Amino acid sequence: MKIEYTLLKEEKNTRARLGKIKTNYGIFETPMFMPVGTQATVKTLSPEELKECDAGIILANTYHLWLRPGEDVIDHAGGLHKFMNWDGPILTDSGGFQVFSLAKPKDITEEGVKFKNQYNGDSLILTPEKSIEIQNKLDSDIAMSFDECVGFPHTRKYVEESVERTLRWAKRGKDVFNNPRQSLFGIVQGAEFEDLRKHCVEELVKMDFDGYSIGGTSVGEPKDVQYQMVEYACKYLPKDKVRYLMGVGDPIDIVENVIRGVDIFDCVSPTRLARHGHALTKYGKINLKNAKYKEDFTPISSECNCYACKHYTKSYIKHLINAEETFGARLLSIHNIYYLINLTKELREAIKNDNILEYREEFIKNYYGEKEN
Amino acid sequence: MKIEYTLLKEEKNTRARLGKIKTNYGIFETPMFMPVGTQATVKTLSPEELKECDAGIILANTYHLWLRPGEDVIDHAGGLHKFMNWDGPILTDSGGFQVFSLAKPKDITEEGVKFKNQYNGDSLILTPEKSIEIQNKLDSDIAMSFDECVGFPHTRKYVEESVERTLRWAKRGKDVFNNPRQSLFGIVQGAEFEDLRKHCVEELVKMDFDGYSIGGTSVGEPKDVQYQMVEYACKYLPKDKVRYLMGVGDPIDIVENVIRGVDIFDCVSPTRLARHGHALTKYGKINLKNAKYKEDFTPISSECNCYACKHYTKSYIKHLINAEETFGARLLSIHNIYYLINLTKELREAIKNDNILEYREEFIKNYYGEKEN
Repeated sequence: MKIEYTLLKEEKNTRARLGKIKTNYGIFETPMFMPVGTQATVKTLSPEELKECDAGIILANTYHLWLRPGEDVIDHAGGLHKFMNWDGPILTDSGGFQVFSLAKPKDITEEGVKFKNQYNGDSLILTPEKSIEIQNKLDSDIAMSFDECVGFPHTRKYVEESVERTLRWAKRGKDVFNNPRQSLFGIVQGAEFEDLRKHCVEELVKMDFDGYSIGGTSVGEPKDVQYQMVEYACKYLPKDKVRYLMGVGDPIDIVENVIRGVDIFDCVSPTRLARHGHALTKYGKINLKNAKYKEDFTPISSECNCYACKHYTKSYIKHLINAEETFGARLLSIHNIYYLINLTKELREAIKNDNILEYREEFIKNYYGEKEN
Repeated sequence: MKIEYTLLKEEKNTRARLGKIKTNYGIFETPMFMPVGTQATVKTLSPEELKECDAGIILANTYHLWLRPGEDVIDHAGGLHKFMNWDGPILTDSGGFQVFSLAKPKDITEEGVKFKNQYNGDSLILTPEKSIEIQNKLDSDIAMSFDECVGFPHTRKYVEESVERTLRWAKRGKDVFNNPRQSLFGIVQGAEFEDLRKHCVEELVKMDFDGYSIGGTSVGEPKDVQYQMVEYACKYLPKDKVRYLMGVGDPIDIVENVIRGVDIFDCVSPTRLARHGHALTKYGKINLKNAKYKEDFTPISSECNCYACKHYTKSYIKHLINAEETFGARLLSIHNIYYLINLTKELREAIKNDNILEYREEFIKNYYGEKEN
């Protein structure tokens, strides 16, 4: 069965939406933050810990799983859910972002992207058809069309050509798509140009995808440009389909983009920040390596209900991070993922109460009000 | 309160003993394998996961905690149990083994051992008094006397002198010991010389320790020499006190030394093997990096009830290890710790049934019968 998106409510004063998504592996409400399990594991966490963080859906990376262990191994295991012991929904990306950002040198042609395998140097090509074939085998709940993610800055001319290629690639992928349990999303490109975003949305909608992603963000653009890009995409996207903003996980960006009409988000930031000793809190990001936490026997946040905050102190987590013990990164990953999912939960509440603008004001006051490091 | 050891039963045909130890943090049966939490964390595991492995007691390293975060931080946190959120019993070593094996260059004098701090190069000295002072502050349930762990091979003359120094150090530590919640063990040295082991036991028993450790093993000696050392120590040790063999965790060594009268063991091997992709099984050690497990969708062991074996396949764990994902080391650590604790559980059962020699025969047949990589 394909996913079913239901728009439950629109916030009175903004474009923020409350929705729910029904999948073969359970129902979850939107807005929702999606933890990233790059290599079929959300770094340092067990599936049970993800459930405890109320993760409604997770993301896995097609590029990484294609190279290791290979989509056939996962297919033979019975698909990604069984392979990694995760019985909740999974979204896979197309591999596009990774071949553009990780694999070098690369060569973009009409056929696809040629690059070297980072592990063994083999020449590889990722095409729209190949990306879909891999994702069909991975058997995720939601697959992404293969697109070109244009960097920032760029010329309008390049973006114009790139949007057309992305549309041709979306069509090619849709034509070979062959997994009745899976949904396929089209990806809206067009950078900061309203007419190009509008054009891209209109052409994708003609192809009738199961949902739409907003791409071309998190590539180095200023925040106001990102919000503009999202506004231009959401303005034209159909209301009855889910909208996924790719690679965005900064707390304020989640707030701002929910207000602009985004439903789901993903980002590696909560686990990456954790490995560097950082924790997200209502009052901003704190760095547990800071000497002042040496004998701080209070939790990261006294208001937080995550496993790390219920049982461990800043002093202990600081010690684990200093000692390079992975349990430290695990505790911080749990906390940061819980924080972002809880943020989307609070945003859902604000949509219900039609007070999301007040929520944003309060959020900014707390988050940027007092700087800690 | 100090620990209370009760000898419940001696096996009919050997020196193997079934016992129980009552501590301020619960009761556990012996023989028992103790996982090692070097830096106040058993690498990759949570306290809840240790409980699920039926860990009766864990070990923490005085040397590491002295250097990072420092015993005062842990003291101010309310002791090691509170610091690391472990409400079961804890044993701390003396730091002796680490200054002898890790810290170089070192200088052994009557006062103690001088060495350089491995993190900042500072000159430090660990003395019997300092070791006890640190352990008193860590507030573990069982502390160790500071001893000299002699390497292998060695001259009889050196061991003779060293045993006398170890005895003088044991006395000095006992004299300054000052924590009524903690028990203190003496350490039997004397290498492979029966008369020196006997002498060391007799002198320690005069000082009346709460339990006795057997030292000078796991320093490169052949297995038969290790078993001989243990035999010579156990032969003279009092029956009403617990016996702890330090640093031994090879499965066959646990079996052989339980038969010779040892009650508790510790070793870093289960977590270290895990980080290298190895799993302990009834049929020997297997290496998950081996290509043959690529599409092996069965658990590490179909007979094992650990979390890893209940939910994950060799194929998935192999992928995690290849991809250097810490969840792989975590699953293998859980499995290996469960395996060793379960081994001591089976040995307790064999002692109850007076069939430990048959158990050993069956164990060896299975473990060494079919070689896997």
